[in-house]
Amino acid sequence: MSASPIAIVIHGGAGTILKKNMTQEVEAAYREALSESVQRGYQVLKSGGTSREAVIAAITYMEDSPLFNAGKGAVFTHEGRVEMDASIMEGRELNAGAVASTTRTRNPITLADAILEHSPHVMLVGVGAEMFADEQGIKLVDNSYFHTERRKKALERAIARERGAVLSEDADDPFELVKDKKGTVGAVALDSEGNIAAGTSTGGMTNKRYGRVGDSPIIGAGTYADNAACGISATGHGEYFIRAAVAHDVCARVKYQNISLQAAADAVVQKRLVEMGADGGIIGLDPGGNIVFSFNSAGMYRASVNTTGEIQVGIYKDD
Amino acid sequence: MSASPIAIVIHGGAGTILKKNMTQEVEAAYREALSESVQRGYQVLKSGGTSREAVIAAITYMEDSPLFNAGKGAVFTHEGRVEMDASIMEGRELNAGAVASTTRTRNPITLADAILEHSPHVMLVGVGAEMFADEQGIKLVDNSYFHTERRKKALERAIARERGAVLSEDADDPFELVKDKKGTVGAVALDSEGNIAAGTSTGGMTNKRYGRVGDSPIIGAGTYADNAACGISATGHGEYFIRAAVAHDVCARVKYQNISLQAAADAVVQKRLVEMGADGGIIGLDPGGNIVFSFNSAGMYRASVNTTGEIQVGIYKDD
Repeated sequence: MSASPIAIVIHGGAGTILKKNMTQEVEAAYREALSESVQRGYQVLKSGGTSREAVIAAITYMEDSPLFNAGKGAVFTHEGRVEMDASIMEGRELNAGAVASTTRTRNPITLADAILEHSPHVMLVGVGAEMFADEQGIKLVDNSYFHTERRKKALERAIARERGAVLSEDADDPFELVKDKKGTVGAVALDSEGNIAAGTSTGGMTNKRYGRVGDSPIIGAGTYADNAACGISATGHGEYFIRAAVAHDVCARVKYQNISLQAAADAVVQKRLVEMGADGGIIGLDPGGNIVFSFNSAGMYRASVNTTGEIQVGIYKDD
Repeated sequence: MSASPIAIVIHGGAGTILKKNMTQEVEAAYREALSESVQRGYQVLKSGGTSREAVIAAITYMEDSPLFNAGKGAVFTHEGRVEMDASIMEGRELNAGAVASTTRTRNPITLADAILEHSPHVMLVGVGAEMFADEQGIKLVDNSYFHTERRKKALERAIARERGAVLSEDADDPFELVKDKKGTVGAVALDSEGNIAAGTSTGGMTNKRYGRVGDSPIIGAGTYADNAACGISATGHGEYFIRAAVAHDVCARVKYQNISLQAAADAVVQKRLVEMGADGGIIGLDPGGNIVFSFNSAGMYRASVNTTGEIQVGIYKDD
């Protein structure tokens, strides 16, 4: 049996990302981080690692970067702390792990993976998830580790707006202007054994209420992988993505309508979600290693390495 | 425009429910509770209420009964308390509400509905969900309200088994013998405006770990409603139902394969889930008011009132 082609695609969130708000410095920082993340994942695949390991390598890099709304640099809840969600799924056996509302897990994607591997359960939330993390030797940190000045300011402004203040974007911070308030990071990979894995990690929405769970840890909404169809990681307004069961719907259209992954992705993102008034996007790949992006927002931070080893990094629609 | 036909279907869990383990007293108690629950929901529809109101009426009745694993009578977690999950969805706008890991909400389905109606979010978990419940005037109670002697004993036996004890079923308690350790209650209704709603509520699994979330509060897994396809409520081994995105998968097959709801339900429950080694079942109805049951376990507690007003109550396969 010949080895399957390998490929990986990642995203760092979708939203109102406009070239006119972007300084050279900011754009360069994002392109470099996206490039580094996708190459870390690709190296894992190239050296014979599994798609799950590649997804984890790519996502932990973005979780550790303050540029993205996941791990270090996650947005603040209404109460001024950080609550994170993550999930991972592999397409051969449909195994999955998910964590929601963790406040102390340094890399939520590694906890989701430990749940996939070592728990009889698929989804754990809150303190119970952290008890399990501790048992598994997963690194826990104080919530303050995740705090950044930029996210704190974003919360203050969101609360002021909620109370009726009319504020323009924060022109003092070139990074804030192009950052999605409900961003997410994600990765989908295909390994040499032909197995697809998909993962997603997020800090949720700025100013979200205590205990809110978005689509990222919901298997079928933010993440889905089925070797018979595709692997998907989503980013956008999570409430809509849950209601539309976005990740599973894309895979279902591929399987049952016998259409290409790109056609299925566009039908969900450019039509179904647009009709619902939801912005965001998805990344995905199919068992042949075909890479797909689809987003209905101004931009989506993204990168990929295709089956011929070619790397691409993009931010805007016409990238 | 003529009014749509009205119909409702409910379940009280699926599992190893065998006639040989059933006393007359136990069987009569279940049949009466199922009949009462479905008729409460049907009365709502008949007097012009919405499908969501009908679903809530049917489910709160089962939550208040110690016979079912939801609300009063929910099973115990490993730590010896009760943690409940619920969700509700309506098919016209795909609106949804879900709550996970609540320990104090007397009727979790009413909290899920309040989240649908009054929260910008779809899913809230734990203490955050209860803060929202309190704001909304939803009844909170002490965790001890949910405790029953029977469920406490079931936990003790599950822990003993986990430690290696070989125990036969508890022949001293005729109710325990026929009770599903991972039962769930659910309802799907079609109202006179042609709108479908589906809801699910559960205490989860006996001996589940702190913070475990099953399929019941997961939109797309335990519950889904889309007027273009069907409404579904599921019950069974939740981890598998999440991985297979059961409720959404049934609706997706109806929409994309253009097959009947019964054919779609059987394809998922009798084939897909059986291949994965997962036991359980679903109830559902389509926009024409056609009622569907499908389960791969020995029995499923269920009842329905069809579009001609005929009531049916069932427990075993051949009921």
